Amino acid sequence: MSSNRPSIPKGTRDFSPTEMVRRKHIFNTIEKNFQLFGYEPLETPAMENLTTLMGKYGEEGDKLLYKILNTGNFLDKIPDELIGKKTSSKLSLEICDRGLRYDLTVPFARYVVQHQNEITFPFKRYQIQPVWRADRPQKGRYREFYQCDVDAIGTNSLLNEIELVQIADKVFQDLKLKVKIKLNNRKILAGLAFLAGAPELISEITIAIDKLEKIGLDGVIEELALHGMNKGTIEKIKPVILLEGSNREKLTELKELMNSSETAMQGIEEMEFIITTLDELNVKADVKLDLSLARGLNYYTGVIIEVVSEEYEIGSICGGGRYDDLTGIFGLPDVSGVGISFGADRIYDVMNSTGTFPESGNRVSQILFVNFGDQEAHYSLKVLEKVRAEGIPALIYPEPVKMKKQLAFANHHNIPYVALIGEQEMKEEKITLKIMETGEQLGLTFSDLIAMISQ
Amino acid sequence: MSSNRPSIPKGTRDFSPTEMVRRKHIFNTIEKNFQLFGYEPLETPAMENLTTLMGKYGEEGDKLLYKILNTGNFLDKIPDELIGKKTSSKLSLEICDRGLRYDLTVPFARYVVQHQNEITFPFKRYQIQPVWRADRPQKGRYREFYQCDVDAIGTNSLLNEIELVQIADKVFQDLKLKVKIKLNNRKILAGLAFLAGAPELISEITIAIDKLEKIGLDGVIEELALHGMNKGTIEKIKPVILLEGSNREKLTELKELMNSSETAMQGIEEMEFIITTLDELNVKADVKLDLSLARGLNYYTGVIIEVVSEEYEIGSICGGGRYDDLTGIFGLPDVSGVGISFGADRIYDVMNSTGTFPESGNRVSQILFVNFGDQEAHYSLKVLEKVRAEGIPALIYPEPVKMKKQLAFANHHNIPYVALIGEQEMKEEKITLKIMETGEQLGLTFSDLIAMISQ
Repeated sequence: MSSNRPSIPKGTRDFSPTEMVRRKHIFNTIEKNFQLFGYEPLETPAMENLTTLMGKYGEEGDKLLYKILNTGNFLDKIPDELIGKKTSSKLSLEICDRGLRYDLTVPFARYVVQHQNEITFPFKRYQIQPVWRADRPQKGRYREFYQCDVDAIGTNSLLNEIELVQIADKVFQDLKLKVKIKLNNRKILAGLAFLAGAPELISEITIAIDKLEKIGLDGVIEELALHGMNKGTIEKIKPVILLEGSNREKLTELKELMNSSETAMQGIEEMEFIITTLDELNVKADVKLDLSLARGLNYYTGVIIEVVSEEYEIGSICGGGRYDDLTGIFGLPDVSGVGISFGADRIYDVMNSTGTFPESGNRVSQILFVNFGDQEAHYSLKVLEKVRAEGIPALIYPEPVKMKKQLAFANHHNIPYVALIGEQEMKEEKITLKIMETGEQLGLTFSDLIAMISQ
Repeated sequence: MSSNRPSIPKGTRDFSPTEMVRRKHIFNTIEKNFQLFGYEPLETPAMENLTTLMGKYGEEGDKLLYKILNTGNFLDKIPDELIGKKTSSKLSLEICDRGLRYDLTVPFARYVVQHQNEITFPFKRYQIQPVWRADRPQKGRYREFYQCDVDAIGTNSLLNEIELVQIADKVFQDLKLKVKIKLNNRKILAGLAFLAGAPELISEITIAIDKLEKIGLDGVIEELALHGMNKGTIEKIKPVILLEGSNREKLTELKELMNSSETAMQGIEEMEFIITTLDELNVKADVKLDLSLARGLNYYTGVIIEVVSEEYEIGSICGGGRYDDLTGIFGLPDVSGVGISFGADRIYDVMNSTGTFPESGNRVSQILFVNFGDQEAHYSLKVLEKVRAEGIPALIYPEPVKMKKQLAFANHHNIPYVALIGEQEMKEEKITLKIMETGEQLGLTFSDLIAMISQ
């Protein structure tokens, strides 16, 4: 029998109540902070037209799209030769018009273009929904997972970047996770590549800098030489590669080193404004200017943001940046913006590994009423109604089974209080309250009970 | 250009911030009450194996399943003859292993069987997730829509039925919708069909009773005769068809009329217990015993529940009942339970049509800080930080554009307060607060501001 048990597709997950309560803690914290900073919710359908999705994620991405088979006699209009030859990829586009969304960015871009006449800019929106990728499943990588995106579009103000850093800081503060927020700016990197005489090697240079600690300066120089960079030119950018010190020290030095690149100077000025302003705000996380941050260099055009845990190594748990052109792919140019995305699954893993979830754990209910039989249950229902009217989640065990079983239920569900209402209690209009942690029992009036359990 | 605008698949929807805030109001109200009654959250993946879904919704249902094309060279292992003949439905099962969930019941059953060793019964869970059906789209019917299911399984106690009626009542009370909660019991209907000598016509009899008002007694008798019922036998059940009066009157009369059917008497007793108990609780909705309620007769085995709006005709906005066998389809017999499901989309339509949404409308932020320039913005950021620390959603307009444009933004987003901080205010450490509804302006200290806007 057990071998016949139903299962779920590889790379997907069920979330049990225990996991759900924890996941909700994460999602609610993220959403509350998105709203606190004035971002509004948006949702788009799970299915998009394949014409919307195809070609947006590169050739590799196209292969990872889940395509939905057309309904009805989907083969009817397909030319015989296409079917006979077994060319899966061509046929798939003939028999599938729709696919599951791969991320939240392309649907957002599609939404903005489709609804451009209804939107007033600046448009500050957040979107928390699952996405699907036909990726090879592995530890921490799933075929269905949630993204939590927050973006401000139609605005070039650096105040947005500042707010996004504040949001990241606040979310992880609320989740009680210690994080480092790394900032970089594509304009500084572009300036650096320009100074090195190899503007096309912007990614390679950044990635090489990232390896400084691992392979040392000589290693970095060697790697850059392998990419065809002249050793003499590398000398010119060596001081930038070796840059150390506080954010302010780095910025001061960068201004001296890079003043021949207008682009770099613009990036440095942006970072100076952002970092100086953040210094005066109540940001708890360690905010670090980090020139080795190479995230999304083919996409971001200004500030780049990445958040990592200081307690558990799992890569980025939040990241994003400024982009120049969100909607060009759909024919609407010049919509710029800045946004970040939280990786809820990784955040879950960090909190799980570091024991950071609140000790209330999988708790939903605050109090269980023991069921002693019809009459007592009847009485309890009226008390329960009043408890719930106070906004306190509560339940009665549905059957009058052995007390031991009912208490085990309370334990299993992490319910801290159990109400015992028998004949005596009904007569005296009292409730005997058992505190599960200590085993202590108290005789309480209704208002005492409420005061006790709503703590 | 506008003809090239991207669009979304037929039958799917984007939800703008305005719609989302309203939808969240509905979902949050439903979820809060599920938790208030001790139900715990569960989520299952959007994709299930097709073997899990196929054959569970009848032949028609199988056709409405969205199937997901296998990735990679999905045609490679398909025999030529299957492809050559263009037999879409057979081929679809060869090239698709997965499908999108069609409802939340089958995935829940699958979950219970798969995780039977981890679950302690009674298992009270809720699940709020979208489902997909390749139905023909029409007014109020979508291809992607949310279901909000709440079930208690592994328990036969009628306390669960009582609680579910309380939940329905409480949800619609909180949403400020006037509803009627109709109750029926399959056992009474089965008894009735037994008395009529036609146990197999249980559905037909129920549906005929439902038409009483429309077609009159003669019409009902005629319809029953068409189904092959003997006119003499129909006479026997006539008093039941004509049953009128209060719930208690109906129950008293039913007991007299149906005492020769043990099943009916059991159903009547159940209804008596439920209705008598509910009478003593603080239920606001009109709860009505309604023998014409024919919902899910091939599935439900005891109490049947259906909720309709008293203000707007749109059919059932919530419904469910008791079932004997949730998981038999997956080889685990004897898991009984009771549950109801809320139709969020219809509830939205009712609230929209009756103007029941809170007047705060699409409001997310409580206050907008006008941006007068770098220095003022800088100062405002610090005030904003303190406002948000009070849990008040707030934002600053990102660019120092014309005041008129900034105020229009506040209006568009239904933001009730605007903070004006210029040179004078910075000097005096005050904030000028504009109340958008009246246009009134007040000079306030920070603590006055908080008191004012957190109202």
